[in-house]
Amino acid sequence: MDKNEILKSIESLSKKKCDAMYLNDFLLSWDKSEDEIAAILQTAEILRAMRQDNISCRMFDTGLAISIFRDQSTRTRFSFAGACNLFGLAIQELDEEKSQIAHGETVRETANMISFLAEVIGIRDDIYLGKGHTYMKEVADAVNQGYREGVLPQRPTLINLQCDIDHPTQTLSDALHLINYFGGVENLKGKKIAMSWAYSPSYGKPLSVPQGIIGLMTRFGMDLVLAHPEGYNLMSEVVTIAQANCERYGGSFARAMSMQEAFQDADIVYPKSWAPYTVMEERTQLLQARDHSGLKKLEKRCLETNKEFIDWECTEKLMQTTREGQALYMHCLPADISGVSCESGEVEASVFERYRARQYTQAGYKPYIIAAMIFLSKFKNPAEKLTQLFNRGRARV
Amino acid sequence: MDKNEILKSIESLSKKKCDAMYLNDFLLSWDKSEDEIAAILQTAEILRAMRQDNISCRMFDTGLAISIFRDQSTRTRFSFAGACNLFGLAIQELDEEKSQIAHGETVRETANMISFLAEVIGIRDDIYLGKGHTYMKEVADAVNQGYREGVLPQRPTLINLQCDIDHPTQTLSDALHLINYFGGVENLKGKKIAMSWAYSPSYGKPLSVPQGIIGLMTRFGMDLVLAHPEGYNLMSEVVTIAQANCERYGGSFARAMSMQEAFQDADIVYPKSWAPYTVMEERTQLLQARDHSGLKKLEKRCLETNKEFIDWECTEKLMQTTREGQALYMHCLPADISGVSCESGEVEASVFERYRARQYTQAGYKPYIIAAMIFLSKFKNPAEKLTQLFNRGRARV
Amino acid sequence: MDKNEILKSIESLSKKKCDAMYLNDFLLSWDKSEDEIAAILQTAEILRAMRQDNISCRMFDTGLAISIFRDQSTRTRFSFAGACNLFGLAIQELDEEKSQIAHGETVRETANMISFLAEVIGIRDDIYLGKGHTYMKEVADAVNQGYREGVLPQRPTLINLQCDIDHPTQTLSDALHLINYFGGVENLKGKKIAMSWAYSPSYGKPLSVPQGIIGLMTRFGMDLVLAHPEGYNLMSEVVTIAQANCERYGGSFARAMSMQEAFQDADIVYPKSWAPYTVMEERTQLLQARDHSGLKKLEKRCLETNKEFIDWECTEKLMQTTREGQALYMHCLPADISGVSCESGEVEASVFERYRARQYTQAGYKPYIIAAMIFLSKFKNPAEKLTQLFNRGRARV
Repeated sequence: MDKNEILKSIESLSKKKCDAMYLNDFLLSWDKSEDEIAAILQTAEILRAMRQDNISCRMFDTGLAISIFRDQSTRTRFSFAGACNLFGLAIQELDEEKSQIAHGETVRETANMISFLAEVIGIRDDIYLGKGHTYMKEVADAVNQGYREGVLPQRPTLINLQCDIDHPTQTLSDALHLINYFGGVENLKGKKIAMSWAYSPSYGKPLSVPQGIIGLMTRFGMDLVLAHPEGYNLMSEVVTIAQANCERYGGSFARAMSMQEAFQDADIVYPKSWAPYTVMEERTQLLQARDHSGLKKLEKRCLETNKEFIDWECTEKLMQTTREGQALYMHCLPADISGVSCESGEVEASVFERYRARQYTQAGYKPYIIAAMIFLSKFKNPAEKLTQLFNRGRARV
Repeated sequence: MDKNEILKSIESLSKKKCDAMYLNDFLLSWDKSEDEIAAILQTAEILRAMRQDNISCRMFDTGLAISIFRDQSTRTRFSFAGACNLFGLAIQELDEEKSQIAHGETVRETANMISFLAEVIGIRDDIYLGKGHTYMKEVADAVNQGYREGVLPQRPTLINLQCDIDHPTQTLSDALHLINYFGGVENLKGKKIAMSWAYSPSYGKPLSVPQGIIGLMTRFGMDLVLAHPEGYNLMSEVVTIAQANCERYGGSFARAMSMQEAFQDADIVYPKSWAPYTVMEERTQLLQARDHSGLKKLEKRCLETNKEFIDWECTEKLMQTTREGQALYMHCLPADISGVSCESGEVEASVFERYRARQYTQAGYKPYIIAAMIFLSKFKNPAEKLTQLFNRGRARV
Repeated sequence: MDKNEILKSIESLSKKKCDAMYLNDFLLSWDKSEDEIAAILQTAEILRAMRQDNISCRMFDTGLAISIFRDQSTRTRFSFAGACNLFGLAIQELDEEKSQIAHGETVRETANMISFLAEVIGIRDDIYLGKGHTYMKEVADAVNQGYREGVLPQRPTLINLQCDIDHPTQTLSDALHLINYFGGVENLKGKKIAMSWAYSPSYGKPLSVPQGIIGLMTRFGMDLVLAHPEGYNLMSEVVTIAQANCERYGGSFARAMSMQEAFQDADIVYPKSWAPYTVMEERTQLLQARDHSGLKKLEKRCLETNKEFIDWECTEKLMQTTREGQALYMHCLPADISGVSCESGEVEASVFERYRARQYTQAGYKPYIIAAMIFLSKFKNPAEKLTQLFNRGRARV
């Protein structure tokens, strides 16, 4: 985008109704309206363009952003860091081992104690089924209460950096990638996207990415096909949401019994491993009971079951069966690449390599998606604020 | 405070004699003069008001703040982060495990090596009796020497984020809370405050909070009652200071043999657990000798001894015996709340909940207390500098 | 430097040819031209002077710096933090344990994923012979490719914060120290510097400092004497470079069989322990094979071998044999000081103490050396940019 296009995009943003995002959290993509989703995607592009034009997006002279990572993270951690830094916020990470939380402190108390000068809180908590989203709501409610009670001088808004249900910063980055790849959101209508389970020699991968994908992509009028081996089903609530989206937005939702079937004539393929739902449930119980031998047995059993589906691999041969053999390959990364990061995995090395740079580009949207979420939660009139930043014209470097 | 009141407060601050704080450390509250204590409290309020009026307090375009946490911390860690960020300082934490200190490096050397671009150093070291304060003095002396020798281009000032003797950022936050609650420091005169031991199913809690409280609150002309079971006495040096304060400032210092006695007609109650002095001494020796079985035995013995005093709990019934049944409940947090964070603890759940929002508000003063300590150590004429920041009128957001 | 001298220095910098450093990495000092080395040293001094004159060097309104520490670090960690902060960059550390790298992610992918908003990447990886430098090149190639492919909007430049071959931020700080101590780079010509092995009761110390010293100091026309016990030789490739430097720059390279011989009439002595080359090779293999008992045996054997050379200590007596008994003692710190940090070590306590403040001052150059490396990699016309910063005259405090 050149500067004229930036201004036009801001102008168009001003027409979107997104005031409900102001002083609000981003937990699940399906809680947001069409306008709100569109506003996120558009704001992300505006911020990315401004940075590329060396226009500083710094709007905080000082301020803190809090991060809580209850699971490993590279991409999302650095994306959150980049997004916060873009606005001038300094990150303070809550390391639960170094805090007094072990002493039995309540979530409500901790949430307030870390938020006196916090503008935003980013949380990853994706390991336990039924836990991550609940924890995020508890934190959000706590700081909201703290704000109402006058304990906190501002309302820190919360961003879901992956929970057990959804991974919105990932799936919105995926959506932005698709929009840019196909030349506009209107071009997604009628495109066939295959969200397929794929084999991986690991276990316990969260369900939030496939759930987030079927919950979001069905809003763009796409034809979604979900494929996975028996027993690897997703949360039924999210499937219901995806189906409802299709009725509302004119797409379709189908199931396939194999990757082959799902890939047939697909425009986009998203082959990715996840754990069986029942295994995740069992794992959550064992983890909470600290049953280490039970966990080891479960892992062993799960890995053996996985192996039955070792042929669920995104191969060159399978890619040939997609639309003109040219489907866009997607993955949230890191992928298990056969012969590279493991013996047999989700995707053949040559397929991954052909789409590698595109995949990396897709990952590069995430800082701006997060930045957009922050921006829209902090300014009642985001278009006006963007115009201000644009007109200020302060150089980033 | 509105803008006029801020200006008036700055004007009044200019009359306080606090130039000895310039390029100096904040280690123990009783090392500071009346004017200096008053200046800290007032500066904290001015900075808080300025931030709430969206006036940026950033005075460093660049600069580092160093933190060293030798014990767990949530509140103080985030308060220090918030205070430094308020002024534009970036925090670099010294993680002693990731540094070369294990190689036998001296404290003097490390202190200088981390301070070349450091404006301020915050340290928590509260576990070992006789160690924390000594370590802080060693660091302060080292960087002071480095500054005199021309090794360091500026004198990094040190802030005690809790040592074995005092916890001044906590107790000054407590004081500010009392001042605001009772409508002025002059209203603290003659108020009865009960600093009482309370039962907790944990052991090894530092003595620095009760010591800091009796050392500070006795400066405001309050009637302080200290209560604890036999064997749970505090450092006698601090008790002596508290008694001397009473003579000087017109308060009183009394001892009670029970929480009941201490609470009688109290205006303020501060029920909080701490470890017996002798246990802390023994623990320090065992920790240094790495006598793990000895430590386990000590912990077991101490927890058993604690249990003898399980009825030292701040209950609704006890609260009824305070002044008009309306004493202000205080705690440095996190409290051991009966039925919430433990079976039996320091305070009954309904008492805590009634004062919860107030307690959180009190905790919210800490970032500004720390900020005030930094400010007064960095500017010879703090009132002039505050006026400058105020007149600059740069928006924080 | 006063302001006039700063301007003169910038003027003289503008005549140095250092455009090849633009968008380039700093991995090994001998890959850089004479002008480039001179430009680093000069820029470091200019930045240091500007900060001391309270002129802000902040040139990034926002931006990230990435650090990857695969070994312990205090000095270099804080120096990197200080350098990045000087320019307004926020540090995001890649903690490989908290990231998904354990999942088998490739170096190329991680390098790109952490770099979307990164201006600079600093890496310490000095433990494994044949690994550190290779890893740095891999990261540098990966982000360079990402930049060319359009994945990264800017080229993050890489700085070697110590690898298995060189430790350029240390040795350039050492060089700046020498230049200031002797009153100009021209005065280093013909000075005798003794780089000598010294005894330490530890094992596994990297070879990169002595290698870096012989590879760099031979460029200033110095007479270098390298001394070490048999078996403690350095990488022959670096020795060859040092010898070639002498021919080119008119110094000399000699070997001595003892510290005594090396110190004779030396102007500068650099007594420092390092591990035998063969031990480092064996250790690398054992570490990779995770052969813990093999490692313990190796450590034991190595410490025993070390002990045979316990008399390789920089004593007062030995110092007397240097040029007029006045040689400048140097060390990269922390030194193993006999009777202070160990029983018997690299240097006698009184020798170290006499040079302590000077040593600390030398360490204080490192933030500015790193800052200069960043600066010259980020601006095509560094003199022009420095002039801009100077003329802007924004106060740091």
